[in-house]
Amino acid sequence: MNATTLAPDLLALTLARTLTQEHVADIVETLNEQDNASVARILLELPFERAVEVLDQPELAEASDIVALLPQERAAALLQAMSADRAADVFEDLEEPFRANIGALIDRKTHSELERLSAYPEHSAGSIMTTEFVSVPSTWTVQQTLDHIRHVERSRETVYAIYVLDPLTHKLVRSASLRRLISADPAAPVASAGFEHKPITVAAETDREDVARLISKYNLLAVPVVDESDHVIGIVTVDDVIDAMIDETTEDVQKLGGMEALDEPYNEIGFGRMIRKRAGWLSILLMGEMLTASAMQHFEGQLEKAIVLSMFIPLIMSSGGNSGSQATSLIIRALALREITLKDWWRVVLRELPSGIVLGTILGTIGVTRIAVWQWLGFYDYGPHWVLVAATVGCALIGIVTFGSLMGSMLPFLLKRFGFDPASASAPLVATMVDVTGLVIYFGVAAAILTGTLL
Amino acid sequence: MNATTLAPDLLALTLARTLTQEHVADIVETLNEQDNASVARILLELPFERAVEVLDQPELAEASDIVALLPQERAAALLQAMSADRAADVFEDLEEPFRANIGALIDRKTHSELERLSAYPEHSAGSIMTTEFVSVPSTWTVQQTLDHIRHVERSRETVYAIYVLDPLTHKLVRSASLRRLISADPAAPVASAGFEHKPITVAAETDREDVARLISKYNLLAVPVVDESDHVIGIVTVDDVIDAMIDETTEDVQKLGGMEALDEPYNEIGFGRMIRKRAGWLSILLMGEMLTASAMQHFEGQLEKAIVLSMFIPLIMSSGGNSGSQATSLIIRALALREITLKDWWRVVLRELPSGIVLGTILGTIGVTRIAVWQWLGFYDYGPHWVLVAATVGCALIGIVTFGSLMGSMLPFLLKRFGFDPASASAPLVATMVDVTGLVIYFGVAAAILTGTLL
Repeated sequence: MNATTLAPDLLALTLARTLTQEHVADIVETLNEQDNASVARILLELPFERAVEVLDQPELAEASDIVALLPQERAAALLQAMSADRAADVFEDLEEPFRANIGALIDRKTHSELERLSAYPEHSAGSIMTTEFVSVPSTWTVQQTLDHIRHVERSRETVYAIYVLDPLTHKLVRSASLRRLISADPAAPVASAGFEHKPITVAAETDREDVARLISKYNLLAVPVVDESDHVIGIVTVDDVIDAMIDETTEDVQKLGGMEALDEPYNEIGFGRMIRKRAGWLSILLMGEMLTASAMQHFEGQLEKAIVLSMFIPLIMSSGGNSGSQATSLIIRALALREITLKDWWRVVLRELPSGIVLGTILGTIGVTRIAVWQWLGFYDYGPHWVLVAATVGCALIGIVTFGSLMGSMLPFLLKRFGFDPASASAPLVATMVDVTGLVIYFGVAAAILTGTLL
Repeated sequence: MNATTLAPDLLALTLARTLTQEHVADIVETLNEQDNASVARILLELPFERAVEVLDQPELAEASDIVALLPQERAAALLQAMSADRAADVFEDLEEPFRANIGALIDRKTHSELERLSAYPEHSAGSIMTTEFVSVPSTWTVQQTLDHIRHVERSRETVYAIYVLDPLTHKLVRSASLRRLISADPAAPVASAGFEHKPITVAAETDREDVARLISKYNLLAVPVVDESDHVIGIVTVDDVIDAMIDETTEDVQKLGGMEALDEPYNEIGFGRMIRKRAGWLSILLMGEMLTASAMQHFEGQLEKAIVLSMFIPLIMSSGGNSGSQATSLIIRALALREITLKDWWRVVLRELPSGIVLGTILGTIGVTRIAVWQWLGFYDYGPHWVLVAATVGCALIGIVTFGSLMGSMLPFLLKRFGFDPASASAPLVATMVDVTGLVIYFGVAAAILTGTLL
């Protein structure tokens, strides 16, 4: 029998049966290749627990649209069984009136939790935290804690981090780890198996990049999110942080390329949406670059006298842009890694200024050599004043590369200082900003060296 | 008493006492601000276990140089107590004859393990794996396994992932997690508490980026590294993967900026080394860009007749570079995330060709409008044939932006196809490659439109 002759439900049933044995991450990969209606049918055929696992994967594309295709009772039951952070993401994206209908079917406690989690700003710790963590009063023993963990294990995102609370105020007093608990004396108080140092915590508003930095610095499996009075309101686990890091890197790379972050995979985003994300910056850069046309008009007289000058314009401008691009990527990354902070701008200037001069001298030497070789070998005749032309190109390269390095390294600081993302200091933006000044430097040097001969 | 009047050893002692209470990651931050001799003195004053913890942090800078300042017996004892993966990194970087002396003081088993771990190629799973993991024969019960874990907990990097081996062949048959073990029936065989699916494994040669992808996809806390016959030779833990991801992102961002990856923090790398990492690409790009000078020489006749054409050269060339930079960052990131693979190149062409035409048309319209407005308002006189000049600029922008998008999107594929890192397709490289063709397109369009009038 041919697979295409199967009725859709039978096909879904067959696929669902095959998928039951697979790792959930692989199931999600297979499902992402199907259309939403098929995925919904397969979810209905999968055992309930398995369907929950599938929906719990952040990698499942268009989960809200898929859930919206399910019978409302089933959708509500699934959301209720999912991990709170993921359920909140899916719930948030549901469209009305389906969202309200589902909300009414979920028990009140879960519903208000989903609403609360959905309300946190995008990219905050609150938006990626889960409320399913293990906390115990500090009066408990290690044995009581272990019994409790055994009891709640299935319903918690992680049981490897345990938060010990003050029995009266419910404030966080200590974090503990399961590995320490299982090797501790069962009769000892749980707090004695905790870490000695003050627990590392974040606020719900903390940016997810800062959460990632803490988790990476302290090698944590989870970090608790606390409110102003030190009550644990959720935890961010290491797998959520890895997902967030991958997202952030994608955004940064796309911004560095001179565009808005797509926020969607390249092969899934609609054509119109992609054009909008790209056209904005391209148009802004074009308008910036129009200043070069104005600058060129200003130097028209020089150009008419010495057409030879125009030949090196692309070469000189691109060298300024390239050195700026190098400096800007170095500084963006160093800022992101907190290797340097805003107050280090002056130290960076003292580093980039000599770097620019040295790099410019290297490029200037190459440029002068190229002109001399072409002249000697007769590939091209730069005229009787070719030595002066070569000197102009060489000196202009030193000036422009130095300026490019300074400009490229300072732009991320300026953007950060005024509250923008330093990663917006893309190579194209730096190049555009360096181009106009590059022309001014070039024609300035030309005027200084060539006046009385060519000009 | 003033701190500066303290004898160095007393100062170290005081610092060491203060540091004993801190989180180890914070200690490392403090130590990184000291010179190596001071750090060595502080390490000697710290309790042994604490010194091991400090050296175990990959964030501790110049650890090998610090260890080399310690008495040899102490250095050997510390290396022996450190986690195997980190000890191998430190040991690998020790200089002879210190390395050999230390090697002789370490027990033979640890020594050969360190030598073996140091031998794996950089950026491979083998180079970041640790050999301190928990494995048990499949004949054991859950209770036996838990007792074993309690016993070895202190000496293992993680006890949350447990590998169940065939008792005869020692091949990996199943992975299990501590959370499942503690809630399982203590009398049940350990394999019954494991995961049903085949264990996810990597080879020692697997690139660390691929390990990161697996850990992120399957939400693992560790992934076992196996040899050809399925014996577990080590594990890579999630915290090592996070460190690797941060390193890889830094490399990619720096390459995208058009330079070699620094491999060291910006404010720690020596001036000469930084210049070398930057000058290479800058020089290559400059030489590539010299082709534009040759192209310009070729069009010298046209330039002499219509100097107005030279004014739009920077604007047109930068637009090609910018659209190429956008396309190249999109594709580099999509390739890194495995959203697309090499065989998708044709689908990308079919996507970038219309994108380029639409984006080029948008920019062309802006360009034509700019010329028309300047002409009408009398800001500049583009001559009697200004309409034709505007048409030339508009058409050239469409052609160059389309070419830039195609070129920028195909370069990462080409680099990957020939075994290079696609991230080397930097914005400056794409811009340079687009520039020469951009000039040819521009003067070609000019010849087609302006011959008989301006040309």
